[in-house]
Amino acid sequence: MNKIGILEEITEIVRAAGVILTSAVSIEDSVEEKEGRANFVTAYDKKIQDFLFERLGEILPQAVFIGEEEEEHASFTEGYAFIIDPIDGTTNFMKGYNASCISVGLLKDGQPDIGVVYNPYLNEMFQAVRGQGAFCNGKQIKVSDHELAEGLVLFGSAPYNEELAKKSFDLAYKLFCNSLDIRRSGSAAIDLCNIACGRAELFFEMLLSPWDYAAGTLMVKEAGGVISDMEGNELVFDKKCSVVAGNKKSMDTFLKL
Amino acid sequence: MNKIGILEEITEIVRAAGVILTSAVSIEDSVEEKEGRANFVTAYDKKIQDFLFERLGEILPQAVFIGEEEEEHASFTEGYAFIIDPIDGTTNFMKGYNASCISVGLLKDGQPDIGVVYNPYLNEMFQAVRGQGAFCNGKQIKVSDHELAEGLVLFGSAPYNEELAKKSFDLAYKLFCNSLDIRRSGSAAIDLCNIACGRAELFFEMLLSPWDYAAGTLMVKEAGGVISDMEGNELVFDKKCSVVAGNKKSMDTFLKL
Repeated sequence: MNKIGILEEITEIVRAAGVILTSAVSIEDSVEEKEGRANFVTAYDKKIQDFLFERLGEILPQAVFIGEEEEEHASFTEGYAFIIDPIDGTTNFMKGYNASCISVGLLKDGQPDIGVVYNPYLNEMFQAVRGQGAFCNGKQIKVSDHELAEGLVLFGSAPYNEELAKKSFDLAYKLFCNSLDIRRSGSAAIDLCNIACGRAELFFEMLLSPWDYAAGTLMVKEAGGVISDMEGNELVFDKKCSVVAGNKKSMDTFLKL
Repeated sequence: MNKIGILEEITEIVRAAGVILTSAVSIEDSVEEKEGRANFVTAYDKKIQDFLFERLGEILPQAVFIGEEEEEHASFTEGYAFIIDPIDGTTNFMKGYNASCISVGLLKDGQPDIGVVYNPYLNEMFQAVRGQGAFCNGKQIKVSDHELAEGLVLFGSAPYNEELAKKSFDLAYKLFCNSLDIRRSGSAAIDLCNIACGRAELFFEMLLSPWDYAAGTLMVKEAGGVISDMEGNELVFDKKCSVVAGNKKSMDTFLKL
């Protein structure tokens, strides 16, 4: 199968996973106590991941799988590897706050080759293929060319790390003072797609896992944007790291600040 | 016409206004320079407001109109008054960041009697009638009963006031430390509706205009929530003020903090 064939198959599988996601409409109604809600979310995470593993495995049986719900991660420096977040924006999903997505990145020899992110609430399907551009619902997308001063800043609060959370708010305020305004959606993959299609100019989060940004990384790059860790290093996919992304102008201003 | 009849007519008009909003899909594509974009947004604000004024005026010819695009505001302590935000979330609209809505509040003798908020991107129609409950797409909604510690905090950054913006970030961080996480959507009316349907537990913004919260106020109250200014006073509709809203538990915790 050629690369576009693989992209189309991944896309259809991710779209079907989106139907599973939106079919879970009333978590808060159906599960009252906290532990019940957490279990419910975990069950949906697992259900969508299992669906993706099974269906994606039929396209590329030789691929290894790396996902949030997995305990051990296979090596993926050679051959194909799927890096998957079955529900990016889990807290949003749990609360019924409609901003979650499914994120599937396909690495080839350790580098992102295909990225697919689907936000079923807005019915937005984002696709990127290395060397062949990025797309939203079939239309090619590009990062904006606005300066940070004319830009929106999207940020993640690194909610699981107290020290980084404090630093994140300080940085968010600093960037707020140098931009139009800030936004916090609760889904890093959606944020990276919004950077890719020029709706916002800068994204940062001080601690993310590879499945949060594997697909989004390619989306930003193929849309003409820049993405790295906060020290300016190329992103890696075998451990957690910080992520900053934007158009070139905003990234330059960010590094100066 | 009885109150439900008025509600239904307002709803249909607001839904039609939503079509105008989403028909403006590619602002960034069509208008390159900053001034052009600002004018484009103003033109759409005006276009939707004119549409609302004309069509709503046919339902209640005796009503006065108060809107963001109006220079002078009529007195509305007696009789009917429409308080309108044709596009709540103007920066989002300008950037193509799909989180804006149309907000229409109907005051009777100075008090909110009907509130309608429509988010056309998610196709969510919120309705509230004094004494008769709040609804999302026809289904009755209620605030959540979660503590702040189990809650999401939505906030506005008061972007047009430097001093309040700094205070807003400090407060957002403090609330972040006492909750699950924070969100910033860029639309106060959408945030208030999300509080009303229990997707989040607390909202605050230190400076809002009456058209930002006239409809949302009724939505929160009719969904069993609490809303006031940040000193705990009843909201007024003849000047700007701070707004805090949530379920009772979260509001109690907020006032202690």
